Order: sequence, then C-alpha cells, then structure tokens
Amino acid sequence: MHTAKWSDIEGKAVTDPGAEGVTIRVLMGDNVGAPTFTMRHFEIAPGGRTPFHAHAWEHEVYILSGRGKVRQKDGEREVGPGSFVYVPGDEEHNFANAGDTPFTFLCVIPASLPCIK
Amino acid sequence: MHTAKWSDIEGKAVTDPGAEGVTIRVLMGDNVGAPTFTMRHFEIAPGGRTPFHAHAWEHEVYILSGRGKVRQKDGEREVGPGSFVYVPGDEEHNFANAGDTPFTFLCVIPASLPCIK
Repeated sequence: MHTAKWSDIEGKAVTDPGAEGVTIRVLMGDNVGAPTFTMRHFEIAPGGRTPFHAHAWEHEVYILSGRGKVRQKDGEREVGPGSFVYVPGDEEHNFANAGDTPFTFLCVIPASLPCIK
Repeated sequence: MHTAKWSDIEGKAVTDPGAEGVTIRVLMGDNVGAPTFTMRHFEIAPGGRTPFHAHAWEHEVYILSGRGKVRQKDGEREVGPGSFVYVPGDEEHNFANAGDTPFTFLCVIPASLPCIK
C-alpha cells in the first residue's frame, strides 16, 4: 500500500503545444507499479487551458476545485467541484479554467497507451 | 462525452458482509461504455467502514472529504482530503470513517475483474 498527498508530488509544467498554465502530477502509475490505469492530478491556473486535441484512449475526469469549461466539437459545458466527465477515445476535447482560482481535477487514463493518432 | 455530478447518481447501500454505512455510486464504467477502468464514489457514514478484505485487482483511491483510516495487515494510516492510496492486488485493506462527517472518496478499479480469491 502506498499513501501520500497530491501536494507531496512535484508538479511539472505541461509543455504540449496549446497548453497554457497547466501543471501535472502523476499520483499513481508507474511510480507505484499500477498495471491497468494511471491517476493524474491537473492544476490549471486562471486563464489557462489544456490543448484541444484527440487521442485513442479515454479519460475519466473528476473535478476537485475551481470552475472550468470542457470544450468538445459541438460546444462547451461548465463544470465545478463534484462534476465528472467521461471523454471516449478519439473525441476532441479540452479543459479550461473559467474562474479566478486554480481549476483542479483528476484525470485517469489507461496505463498502456497506443500511439497518438 | 458524458458529464454529470456525483450527486446525480443514485447511491446504493453496500451490503457485503463487514460493510457498515457504505454507499456506492458508479460514476463512469459500463454506464458510459468505459473499456479499461471504472470510477466509483464511496460515502461512508460516521462509524462506518468497508470490509477488511483482499482481491486480485488494484485500487486507486483519492480522498474527497472527511477523515478516514485505511487499515492494512500491519497497521493503520490516517487520510483526509487530498490524500491518495494505492492498494495493490491481493493486499488486505479496509477504509473506515474516523470523523463525525461523511468520509468520501473515489476508488478506481479495472473494468474487467478476475474472480474473487
């Protein structure tokens, strides 16, 4: 068993094209030998966003704090603490901070990722 | 894409032997066609607990609210909001409310579970 706090993990800036003000922390993945899926913690600063992109794997997202917008091909949805978002594989999406405090969420992905399409 | 709030999902009492005051909500799993892993929301009432048990699959747990104790073979650890817990397959564990407010957490498991050992 492995126990820690999200804030114990050193955050890394996401430098993918289109990402702004995004910090990622891998909570449980290769670091604990997780075989099936990986839980990451994202923190998006006010004004920030993840890239609008698609990939073959799914996301399971749970919003922890702040106010955000989830964009998809045909529009946007507002989300806040207690919201969850399922993004199927191959569906375009991004997450943006829509408030003036950090927008934080968990995002779980498969441990083995296929090639980016 | 599928978006909702955890509180939109109808809670079900966990009736496994050894469970007390535990409510489960499946946020993302078969309901959204998730192929690899399933995110569940657990709410444990004050005084309540999950069974002390082991099974072949892993847990990735993130504490949302309240105060809890995670028990393992060789002791207990206190956890609270922002704590995460990785429980490898086959390791005995349980989660108990150690406070006087609901103890809530997310628990992610593989979508395909082997037989219970």
